[in-house]
Amino acid sequence: MHDLATTLWPYNRSITGPGLRQTLDILSKRHDGFRTHHFKTGTHVFDWEIPREWTIWDAYIEHESGQRFAEFAKNNLSVLGYAAPLDIVLDHADLDPYLYTQPDQPDRIPYVTSYYKERSGFCMRENEKAALPTGKFRLFIDSEFSDGEVVIGECVIPGESDREILFSTYICHPSMANNELSGPVLADQILQDLAERKASTGLRYTYRVLFLVETIGSIAYLSRFAGHLKAQVDAGFVLSCVGDERAYSHVESRFGTSLADRALNAALKGLPNTKRYSFLQRGSDERQFCAPGIDLPVCGFCKSKYGEYQEYHTDADDLTLVTPKGLSDAHRVISDVIGALEHGLYPKTNVLCEPQMGKRGLYPTISQKGSYDAVRLRMDTLAYADGQIDVFDMCERIGVNLGTLNDELEILTVNGLISTENAKHELETGNVG
Amino acid sequence: MHDLATTLWPYNRSITGPGLRQTLDILSKRHDGFRTHHFKTGTHVFDWEIPREWTIWDAYIEHESGQRFAEFAKNNLSVLGYAAPLDIVLDHADLDPYLYTQPDQPDRIPYVTSYYKERSGFCMRENEKAALPTGKFRLFIDSEFSDGEVVIGECVIPGESDREILFSTYICHPSMANNELSGPVLADQILQDLAERKASTGLRYTYRVLFLVETIGSIAYLSRFAGHLKAQVDAGFVLSCVGDERAYSHVESRFGTSLADRALNAALKGLPNTKRYSFLQRGSDERQFCAPGIDLPVCGFCKSKYGEYQEYHTDADDLTLVTPKGLSDAHRVISDVIGALEHGLYPKTNVLCEPQMGKRGLYPTISQKGSYDAVRLRMDTLAYADGQIDVFDMCERIGVNLGTLNDELEILTVNGLISTENAKHELETGNVG
Amino acid sequence: MHDLATTLWPYNRSITGPGLRQTLDILSKRHDGFRTHHFKTGTHVFDWEIPREWTIWDAYIEHESGQRFAEFAKNNLSVLGYAAPLDIVLDHADLDPYLYTQPDQPDRIPYVTSYYKERSGFCMRENEKAALPTGKFRLFIDSEFSDGEVVIGECVIPGESDREILFSTYICHPSMANNELSGPVLADQILQDLAERKASTGLRYTYRVLFLVETIGSIAYLSRFAGHLKAQVDAGFVLSCVGDERAYSHVESRFGTSLADRALNAALKGLPNTKRYSFLQRGSDERQFCAPGIDLPVCGFCKSKYGEYQEYHTDADDLTLVTPKGLSDAHRVISDVIGALEHGLYPKTNVLCEPQMGKRGLYPTISQKGSYDAVRLRMDTLAYADGQIDVFDMCERIGVNLGTLNDELEILTVNGLISTENAKHELETGNVG
Repeated sequence: MHDLATTLWPYNRSITGPGLRQTLDILSKRHDGFRTHHFKTGTHVFDWEIPREWTIWDAYIEHESGQRFAEFAKNNLSVLGYAAPLDIVLDHADLDPYLYTQPDQPDRIPYVTSYYKERSGFCMRENEKAALPTGKFRLFIDSEFSDGEVVIGECVIPGESDREILFSTYICHPSMANNELSGPVLADQILQDLAERKASTGLRYTYRVLFLVETIGSIAYLSRFAGHLKAQVDAGFVLSCVGDERAYSHVESRFGTSLADRALNAALKGLPNTKRYSFLQRGSDERQFCAPGIDLPVCGFCKSKYGEYQEYHTDADDLTLVTPKGLSDAHRVISDVIGALEHGLYPKTNVLCEPQMGKRGLYPTISQKGSYDAVRLRMDTLAYADGQIDVFDMCERIGVNLGTLNDELEILTVNGLISTENAKHELETGNVG
Repeated sequence: MHDLATTLWPYNRSITGPGLRQTLDILSKRHDGFRTHHFKTGTHVFDWEIPREWTIWDAYIEHESGQRFAEFAKNNLSVLGYAAPLDIVLDHADLDPYLYTQPDQPDRIPYVTSYYKERSGFCMRENEKAALPTGKFRLFIDSEFSDGEVVIGECVIPGESDREILFSTYICHPSMANNELSGPVLADQILQDLAERKASTGLRYTYRVLFLVETIGSIAYLSRFAGHLKAQVDAGFVLSCVGDERAYSHVESRFGTSLADRALNAALKGLPNTKRYSFLQRGSDERQFCAPGIDLPVCGFCKSKYGEYQEYHTDADDLTLVTPKGLSDAHRVISDVIGALEHGLYPKTNVLCEPQMGKRGLYPTISQKGSYDAVRLRMDTLAYADGQIDVFDMCERIGVNLGTLNDELEILTVNGLISTENAKHELETGNVG
Repeated sequence: MHDLATTLWPYNRSITGPGLRQTLDILSKRHDGFRTHHFKTGTHVFDWEIPREWTIWDAYIEHESGQRFAEFAKNNLSVLGYAAPLDIVLDHADLDPYLYTQPDQPDRIPYVTSYYKERSGFCMRENEKAALPTGKFRLFIDSEFSDGEVVIGECVIPGESDREILFSTYICHPSMANNELSGPVLADQILQDLAERKASTGLRYTYRVLFLVETIGSIAYLSRFAGHLKAQVDAGFVLSCVGDERAYSHVESRFGTSLADRALNAALKGLPNTKRYSFLQRGSDERQFCAPGIDLPVCGFCKSKYGEYQEYHTDADDLTLVTPKGLSDAHRVISDVIGALEHGLYPKTNVLCEPQMGKRGLYPTISQKGSYDAVRLRMDTLAYADGQIDVFDMCERIGVNLGTLNDELEILTVNGLISTENAKHELETGNVG
């Protein structure tokens, strides 16, 4: 995953334009069935209008001495996102309206955009701005707005059922690692996993993975496909900032009670430094997926949540913050969710009362104070496997991580003590008395 | 409000008698449609019987030296409420059964009554009692019991709907400011507000404002009108002790979940020093409105709750404790509740997904870390405006005061982004995908 | 109760065998209608098979000097439960596989069993084991396995209704007082109480009291009678460790919300040192009663819960730990539950609004600050007596112990203010307005 992130790092992605297309080209070659959706400039999507496409070739501020600052060629973030073309000469005293800094982090270049109001500007370190020499500066932005499109990537892997699990991530930020590339590379890995699982054991669910541009892209996509999603999706996850090693975060859906919320909650249970944010702390495309009238069962998954780590939306959000271990830990969470969904949601015991575990070698045959502790999880799993409680609720009731429960259910299934289906089902375990 | 309280202060109100009638006369002249209900002595009202009417002209204790104590002419509280006529001479040693004090507050005259068992007695400061000279005392109470009535005041302001909002307060205490007059003067102000609102924009709801005497009055009223109230009232509020500046208190209805509870909870959210008391801490006429079989959706609203402030039921509960600011703050709470009810309970967004706020000037057009914070309430309001959640729930979910939400809803309505009705309604915002 | 415990103490009970039969003989003579159920060796009961019957006559370890250790004749716990016959001579160095100790409690003989895997062994103090002399030892166990049966005791006392209340306890441990005998002697007392109540006032409910052997006994019983129990039982209680003076414990049913849970919760409210354990901390026959597909409304009642006190499963769990006061306090809890069930679950007031309590002498006739406090429970009881809330919920809402509420309801019933039935019922208290 980290290698793919390194590959995708230099492209100057925005909500439209060449960097976006180059990224989708790379992804499309990696997955069968990858396709794109196109929304032309001027198209109305719900309350919005698709903007003109933005292309940028170069940008810099050049002092009369020839020294250059805020060079786009050195860092994609140096220019205001969606900056209009500019070529003017200004005195030092007149620069201010064109310079964006993050005063509380004076050594960082902030990431700033102005998608829907035409502006020109540069982003630079506050310290760098303070140290600018006096004299005249040329402000040069070689960019263009043109009729074009918003492009969205999508890959669907069909399973036995047409019930869908949705993953959504975004590819609209230039050179930011956690708050951008971590999502697409995890989504890429999920697609690989699903293709392998399909080839080996088949898939129960159909999986839909979206590579969106935030806000305008998700709104455009929903304006075309919300009806289908509302009919088919059982759970969805927005993947954002999933590559650092600091935390595991859950951003709730609007009511925080969807299958997706419960699944993520179970997968995070017991992990170190987990954080749960209400929908009031939302910030990515769950804003659209969970909007009134859309109402999809979608929650957000992050390691450190956007807005909650210092490097967020600055040039410090780079590939040292996102690590192979950070990505791998996030991948484990999603794998546990998929594992549970594919194994079946509603385990039920095949016997009435507790089974005789000793004869199966699943329980100590000596009974002494404390001997029960070692198999407590096993007995608790059986005690709640009633065909009515799903695995995510079981994790909550038993207080166990989803991955751990998956393993225990596998042992009990192999020993013939548990059956699992994807819907609630009554126990049919023979004559009761 | 404070001026009216000053006017009403000297009348010696009780659950029957001239002071009660004089007070109702003053109120009735201030409001169109004000009427009174009369319950004659001896009438059975549920488990109770209307008592004889009590009239008192004078009362005092006179020492053989001529010095007088516990003079009714100086303070209404000096005589036991409903004291029977008395004219006896006693030695100092025999006074005790006739003297009521508050030993834990030796400088205060307590307010004591004996409505349903005939007694004679005086209320005085513990310190004053301790300093009584030796010798003989004449105990004189010039009072009378006679067949009469309990009188209740009522004013109904009809709105477009016959669904009712109830306000109830009481006028049965002699010269106590917070635990009595604050309620009637706030109710008086509410009636003025409603008349003005009706004249300017009309009223959605019908409002019923009751000026009761506590317990026997509310029971009498309910014995006649409970059927109507049960059929019509959507929410009701008992106004008691609403004039001090120390706290905002909510006394829950029997289950604490009625529309009135949720409305008051929303209106108090975020205010300083709010307190929520369960129905177990009830004490005013919610005892009757919420009794089993009556079951009205009524909760209590206080500033400092009865029984919870030191001046309660003593001569210190006067017009220095109740202040114009204290009354005005209480008035703001009720105004916010009425504002929400009249604006409509169920806001719904008119667009799918988030609206483009920038083009309406409702959102910053520059996107940088932190720029979202300023409009968070606006976006949260839209995010929960699904036509299914009422404004009181919205306050709870978003964590915002009702008055603040009212203002935000007004802005969004003016901009065409929100519609509001008084019943749950499905979003009908066009074809979804 | 303590006397009966003393009588039953010496019998060497196990899950089968003579000690079990002797105990049931003693109990059967004390109660009319006591009967036994028999399950023969080899019978399949759900996932289990009834084991062979175990008889033991003697067991000891004899040093070559003639000194004996781990003498069964001195303490039933000295031999491994279900120990196979043995007569071998071993060197000191080879003893270890045959000796069971509790190293963290070196002065205690642990209680250890091996029901389902054939083993021979002795239980002894860790300190005693460490002090064994060198030399040769004869290990002698005079026991026998034979085809036989598991026997279960049962006594049913029919009431007016065929709805049942279940009490279950166990008689399968040798010489342990809290974690065994306390349960049967409390159950014995309950049977006496019920017989007396039936003779004096009759019984509303039918009561079923089971004297089981843990696990195999409850599973065997349920394999035959679960159908009946599922159809008839409204609430059940597993009585275990109910004789010490240290705590009151509630072990929840699978979901913790059954009538039994709510009843026990109410009966324990306000008692000193109460503890509530979730079903995850289960350990006695609630494991079977609440298993998926059995799903009986049964919770566990203990004083100090098994596994939670130091003496548990050692020779220190004796008749000094279990005291007459400890048993009596547990008896009070169960008596309060039975009292509530027999009095009726749904109290309703006979009057609308608050009754006039003063005329009945149930309320002070003087009203002064604080005078209401003394009758708060009385008024709260009336305020929630709506015919819809059961007494266990009332305890929770009012914050009062069930026994205290029972007393208050009795006063209000005698005064004609309350009626109580065993099902929810609407108030029919006359014309409302």
